[in-house]
Amino acid sequence: MEFADVVMKRRAVRRFVDGGVDREVLERIARLAQRTPSAGFSQGQRLVVVVDPGLRRRVGVVCGEQQYEPDFGRWISECAAQFVPCVSEGIYHRRYQEPDKLDEDGSEIDWPIPYWWVDVGATMQTVMLAAVNEGLGCGFAGPAGGVAPLREALGIPEAFTPIGVMPVGIPLPDVRSPSLQRGWVPFEQFARWDRWD
Amino acid sequence: MEFADVVMKRRAVRRFVDGGVDREVLERIARLAQRTPSAGFSQGQRLVVVVDPGLRRRVGVVCGEQQYEPDFGRWISECAAQFVPCVSEGIYHRRYQEPDKLDEDGSEIDWPIPYWWVDVGATMQTVMLAAVNEGLGCGFAGPAGGVAPLREALGIPEAFTPIGVMPVGIPLPDVRSPSLQRGWVPFEQFARWDRWD
Repeated sequence: MEFADVVMKRRAVRRFVDGGVDREVLERIARLAQRTPSAGFSQGQRLVVVVDPGLRRRVGVVCGEQQYEPDFGRWISECAAQFVPCVSEGIYHRRYQEPDKLDEDGSEIDWPIPYWWVDVGATMQTVMLAAVNEGLGCGFAGPAGGVAPLREALGIPEAFTPIGVMPVGIPLPDVRSPSLQRGWVPFEQFARWDRWD
Repeated sequence: MEFADVVMKRRAVRRFVDGGVDREVLERIARLAQRTPSAGFSQGQRLVVVVDPGLRRRVGVVCGEQQYEPDFGRWISECAAQFVPCVSEGIYHRRYQEPDKLDEDGSEIDWPIPYWWVDVGATMQTVMLAAVNEGLGCGFAGPAGGVAPLREALGIPEAFTPIGVMPVGIPLPDVRSPSLQRGWVPFEQFARWDRWD
């Protein structure tokens, strides 16, 4: 699909067919997601792709799916796969302790921005867009029950933080998120030319 | 351009033609960048697009361009425009203090993940890909001199944090980043199926 169409078609989907997407399609999405940049090419990002229905349900429970059920149904567990982006802050520190990245005084830089979160956000966006590119929909649910239970459910090591769960699948008509009634910020407020003020 | 080609063609560019890109092309990139999702549709992300050559140079200095000059030249200031993604954590808190987002006990959620950084990372990725889609290149430089001087150079208010500077322009042959010698993590390590372990 044309890039601009993918970006404009993307929206948060909250209702999917259960299953129905071939593994090779899911793998294409994951392979594109890997091509996301990272500070110093640290590559601290990872993906867990949950296909097994029992595990998907368990992940749904960790994300508080029951709260959503009256309005949206089981939109976190009923999908083709859950993409779970993870990131290791430690990988960034180790990368920036290598000789080519050290400060002049030989110490690790003071991180002005926690780029591990920024980079895994870039990975999240690539997954979303790659799903749309395959004609699929994608949502996002935070780990409402906490990061630790999500880590435990999927056997994710302590060194990696799963930032949430992205159900991907064939979209069904769903209830529009009430958040959308807020409308987009005017473009002139979003983007400013030369100086902010 | 086809979405998958855009993702696969993207790389960190460090040498550009100075200027040479129409404002409407830059605006198309900014308009696509706005279509990036955000937690609760908070839309805490913003862009400053720096076209003015004097301002670009000032921003380059703030990003420590002189350190790079022997190897890469003035790759931060000599470009068509610098895209500076910004984010306001406060907007997220205010959004999640609205009635539909409060916890059952009426308080703001405990944020398991700082989604403001994640979301502005998604915006960064949309800018990069949208630049490639226009046949342009895009780089990224952190505010080596600190966030405050970058904020001051562009008149960005305290409430917003600029996460870095993305020079966008017509790419010139450049010195490959030594980071790339590290190679990609094997796909089987990047993406895991069902469980991590």
